[in-house]
Amino acid sequence: MRPIVQTTECGLFSAVDPRTGTAIGTYREASAEDVRRAAAAASEASGSVALADRSRRAALLEVVAGALRERCEEIVSCADAETALGEARLQGELERTAVQLQKFSEIVEAGDYLEALIDLPDPEAKPTPRPDLRRMLVPIGPVAVFGASNFPLAFSVAGGDTASALAAGCPVIVKGHPSHPGTSKLVAETLRGAVSDCGLPDGSFALLQSSSAVVGEDLVERPEVAAVAFTGSLRAGRALFERASRRSCPIPVYAEMGSVNPFVVSRGALATRGEQIAEGLISSVTGSAGQLCTKPGLVFIPAGASGQAFADALGRSLGDGAPQWLLSEQIRDGLTACTAMLQALTEPIGEASSPNAPEDVSFCAQPQLFLTSAARLRERPEIAQECFGPVAVLAIYEHLEELCATLPRLGGQLTATVHSEPCEADAIRPLVSVLARIAGRLVFDGYPTGVSVTHAMQHGGPYPASTAAAYTSVGMAAIERFLRPLAWQNAPARLLPPELHDENPVRIAQRIDPPGRVRRWAA
Amino acid sequence: MRPIVQTTECGLFSAVDPRTGTAIGTYREASAEDVRRAAAAASEASGSVALADRSRRAALLEVVAGALRERCEEIVSCADAETALGEARLQGELERTAVQLQKFSEIVEAGDYLEALIDLPDPEAKPTPRPDLRRMLVPIGPVAVFGASNFPLAFSVAGGDTASALAAGCPVIVKGHPSHPGTSKLVAETLRGAVSDCGLPDGSFALLQSSSAVVGEDLVERPEVAAVAFTGSLRAGRALFERASRRSCPIPVYAEMGSVNPFVVSRGALATRGEQIAEGLISSVTGSAGQLCTKPGLVFIPAGASGQAFADALGRSLGDGAPQWLLSEQIRDGLTACTAMLQALTEPIGEASSPNAPEDVSFCAQPQLFLTSAARLRERPEIAQECFGPVAVLAIYEHLEELCATLPRLGGQLTATVHSEPCEADAIRPLVSVLARIAGRLVFDGYPTGVSVTHAMQHGGPYPASTAAAYTSVGMAAIERFLRPLAWQNAPARLLPPELHDENPVRIAQRIDPPGRVRRWAA
Repeated sequence: MRPIVQTTECGLFSAVDPRTGTAIGTYREASAEDVRRAAAAASEASGSVALADRSRRAALLEVVAGALRERCEEIVSCADAETALGEARLQGELERTAVQLQKFSEIVEAGDYLEALIDLPDPEAKPTPRPDLRRMLVPIGPVAVFGASNFPLAFSVAGGDTASALAAGCPVIVKGHPSHPGTSKLVAETLRGAVSDCGLPDGSFALLQSSSAVVGEDLVERPEVAAVAFTGSLRAGRALFERASRRSCPIPVYAEMGSVNPFVVSRGALATRGEQIAEGLISSVTGSAGQLCTKPGLVFIPAGASGQAFADALGRSLGDGAPQWLLSEQIRDGLTACTAMLQALTEPIGEASSPNAPEDVSFCAQPQLFLTSAARLRERPEIAQECFGPVAVLAIYEHLEELCATLPRLGGQLTATVHSEPCEADAIRPLVSVLARIAGRLVFDGYPTGVSVTHAMQHGGPYPASTAAAYTSVGMAAIERFLRPLAWQNAPARLLPPELHDENPVRIAQRIDPPGRVRRWAA
Repeated sequence: MRPIVQTTECGLFSAVDPRTGTAIGTYREASAEDVRRAAAAASEASGSVALADRSRRAALLEVVAGALRERCEEIVSCADAETALGEARLQGELERTAVQLQKFSEIVEAGDYLEALIDLPDPEAKPTPRPDLRRMLVPIGPVAVFGASNFPLAFSVAGGDTASALAAGCPVIVKGHPSHPGTSKLVAETLRGAVSDCGLPDGSFALLQSSSAVVGEDLVERPEVAAVAFTGSLRAGRALFERASRRSCPIPVYAEMGSVNPFVVSRGALATRGEQIAEGLISSVTGSAGQLCTKPGLVFIPAGASGQAFADALGRSLGDGAPQWLLSEQIRDGLTACTAMLQALTEPIGEASSPNAPEDVSFCAQPQLFLTSAARLRERPEIAQECFGPVAVLAIYEHLEELCATLPRLGGQLTATVHSEPCEADAIRPLVSVLARIAGRLVFDGYPTGVSVTHAMQHGGPYPASTAAAYTSVGMAAIERFLRPLAWQNAPARLLPPELHDENPVRIAQRIDPPGRVRRWAA
């Protein structure tokens, strides 16, 4: 078996074109010394006045967004050669990446994310007098970001993790994903140019490229690194989490590790709009060749003739679709193993197929559906593992009570979806309660793929969906991962940050207790 | 050496009176089956409608506060016999515990802690249409709370961890500290009575008593437990953290593990009010026999004659104080080891003493001061380890630049204190920046002990002060430890919690994006 990337003897590696299996480009493997230097520079940048300046960081994010758009054609063309995701999808992803940077720029400038609190002193307070206490969030320090293979732009070098960490005021060291080093290099050049143009220290950003796991492991061990953001497999995310927890000074790992995203169709919804749901599912399961962490991988359908008809139609439609390019040989091999497991434990619907054989030079797979039942799932929980690619499992259930007993066994999920009819609300409510306990986001009468970047987005969930259920990796709250609170007690105004001054000179939201005692700026 | 508590052969143990070394009371050791049962009951309570009801939880906390005040005399008398902390301090602690419960009651009722966000849909949004997204915080599930020896009330059975976890809607299982089982039992009775009176399920609260570490370890391993709150030593906190991280489903451990709390006196402050600072330090170092995690254990004084005079006077005053009772034999032995280390590596000021000898039946120690220099500290960093008891180290520094180079080596701290004069502000600013990077709370011209329970309080800090620098264990933000975000996408109103309805029927703070599109209730 070939490695996912080709490594030469002299410390170089290449990307592989998924459509042809040929090597493209040559990139230098980062050394242990590169890791050490990047961490030292990040630590120095961490204490700099320039990086502490919110306006300057806001400008940086805005400049990066503009520069990415300017180089859109070049970046998308390189990313398409390295990932086979297609130009339309990659153009959309670049625009999303730029919008994300701009939105973080806006919230940094606004400053409300600092959660400034001012507790005024009260010498009469019981049981003890109360001091003047002011609190706001401060950056935690250098952040290691691991690029994801399936989002070469939006979850890679200048993606959401980098944008939110820089927004928070933390220097970033990206470990680029080895399946798209050319894209990483172009984006990093753009970012480094913006860092320099905005007068920020060099150490504010670095890219480390490597085809081996050692560079990432070294990075997580660096004492200067204060947090890790990761998007990828459960195996890799868990390994980083354990490594970071074993450090002499443990650090948080925000690993988003995917899930099967249970998708429930009620009897009413199946009867009223089964065909429409099937169409929606096909595009949600096959979009980006099913290589999305919110792909609905496990679809629950009520037992009976119409459920069976739905399964048959969905299986045929998927099976009739064209084969799809996969990101890499590694993902193709993972999908091969996963579909072999499903073939053994469930019934394939339509003609059984498997991703192309190991000897094939290109990496692709035929969309496919497997059939099982809720009862069988309870016996063989491995059926509910994430299968990364254009594949879904359809599970027949007898009644909603059975679902309520089955779903908690799935473990933590990024999303859970319910399609139902208004008249079923009372019957559906217990199911929604069960799903609320395992998922980070509940989707109603829609599809979990297509994660919008807004304030209320939650992309994360109980383990194993993520290692930190209290956080999100998409949406404006993603910045919270890189902040910690700091309190100032009885500080003279001249030693307080302006965000905590009574006069509120920088006009951010301040929460005052008791209210009304100092002037408060209102939006 | 005797164990900290006396264990009999038939699964019973006793507390020990620190003033006499005699056994008081007999308590049953919790079994593995008790742990299993408590966890199962907590899991069941976790999904209950009653515990999800904010008003009911608010009522519970209020009722517990009242019931504790009613039983004040009995509880304080028992706690004094078990801890020797003295009735005045314990009465204050009981009142603080009650106030804390009431404050959490208020914030649960108000509901703003839910951080309700509503992102209205926008079909025109670029690059993709935006759905209706609503997000608020939900309870994470059953919480294991470890009682602390040094706060038998405020950080034990009904202390801040329990209050904030119940406030969040999480059932609580307390592992009581074995040095005050009688106090734990009385408080648990009170709490269980309130749980029943308020119509909450039995599993909402349980106390497990044991003199061995196994019960706590079993508890952290239970799959039903979703988070751990701990206050105590670095060794024990780190062990729980590692255990929780190794679980097949890892859970967060919020361990507050103390620190040396560096305390810097500037040249100006020493000249202007050295005597006053010395007085303040004496009461801050010896209050509760120095058994406070915010005790200023490492005091930096400028070199020169006045620094030396300050050291001599402080050392004499401490040495002249009466011996103080310690909480337990374990703490006495820890202090003995720590002062032996300090005697070897620093110069004792005043007459050298050590806590009473192991053969003594009571547990006490003479307050004491040790002298070193910032230069010596950089050579022998072990001098800066927390020494739990009425002991402090005074370190002479040459100039502020030297301090800025020395302080980062101390590692994470709960607090850092600076005494300076207004005319020194410019010189002090870089020092404050250095301290801001290592501490959770900066105290100006005051003392770090006496942690007030307000919104802006921060009691936590970078490791090893805590295992989770993003959180606090004191103050209203302590509730954040036990919550995670959940998002609802395109949910029909009938399946949304009332907190996220457009009409805002429960009148909590909702943040709407874009603003002004739905009716918003304003305080």
